[in-house]
Amino acid sequence: MYEVEIKVRADHDRVRARLSELDAVPEGTVRQVDTYYDHPVRKFAETDEALRVRRESAAKRDETRITYKGPLVEAESKTRTELETAVDDGDTVADILVKLGFEAAATVEKTRERFRCDGYTITLDTVSGLGEFLEVETEAEVIEPAREGAIELLERLGLDAGDQIRRSYLGLLIEADS
Amino acid sequence: MYEVEIKVRADHDRVRARLSELDAVPEGTVRQVDTYYDHPVRKFAETDEALRVRRESAAKRDETRITYKGPLVEAESKTRTELETAVDDGDTVADILVKLGFEAAATVEKTRERFRCDGYTITLDTVSGLGEFLEVETEAEVIEPAREGAIELLERLGLDAGDQIRRSYLGLLIEADS
Repeated sequence: MYEVEIKVRADHDRVRARLSELDAVPEGTVRQVDTYYDHPVRKFAETDEALRVRRESAAKRDETRITYKGPLVEAESKTRTELETAVDDGDTVADILVKLGFEAAATVEKTRERFRCDGYTITLDTVSGLGEFLEVETEAEVIEPAREGAIELLERLGLDAGDQIRRSYLGLLIEADS
Repeated sequence: MYEVEIKVRADHDRVRARLSELDAVPEGTVRQVDTYYDHPVRKFAETDEALRVRRESAAKRDETRITYKGPLVEAESKTRTELETAVDDGDTVADILVKLGFEAAATVEKTRERFRCDGYTITLDTVSGLGEFLEVETEAEVIEPAREGAIELLERLGLDAGDQIRRSYLGLLIEADS
């Protein structure tokens, strides 16, 4: 299963009107604080991998998940293999990673407002230090039709897949810093 | 908080009678399958650390936990710092570890029957390939009094702390193999 996603900059106020016209179903807002880890003998930025601990707070629950993201398998749509599971205690997982030699390398904080539309998840992201974005995302066994559907959905939202930002928020933050 | 434990070989049938006399409270039986991981650039056997994924099945629940054990801080009682948290999906955690470069190095399978007595946990372990053991264990901020209590409890069970086995089941299995 692949995660197919396209991300663009987007003025959220303008997009909201379109979402309403498309009968997109609101799925709530969450706050995410992501810590990315690096390892002294394998720099994930160089191997194009990522190891992340995500703490997510929503209205009714808090949750921590650990995620490994593999290298790109399809560059156009930023498609990667993703392994993720929830963990009971985020602080303990963070401590274990440090004991194993990993180092907390960067933190990304954002608010995500999700909608569901035509089998896709549309997310309005407000990222600390970066601004407003919109992401169209789905999971698929076959990449190309999923990607074409995402491009079409962006058009219906008044956005252009040609403006796709391929860098992660982490990458954009590192770029903004330098 | 330290984990203070003393482990000896013990004939379970003989110990059960003593446990009954001491009014030890049965806490149920679980089956544990432990996978220990190693890393190409940091051999945990050499650094005296351990990284373990434990799948535990009991009558009413299945659970997976990930555990880091640090080097010995007190050799007599095998005292170590231990970091542990439950995870949702054991297979995913195992897959993530392999992606990060860890290798499944050994597996230990055992049945554990637990009793509670005077603030200590007494565990009757039946370990595949090794036989029957008894472990007296508690958590403590200060090591020495906890260790003295464990020695005394062993005596009341007709066992001798002088027979303490300091090697882990993993270590004993590796020893038996070689």
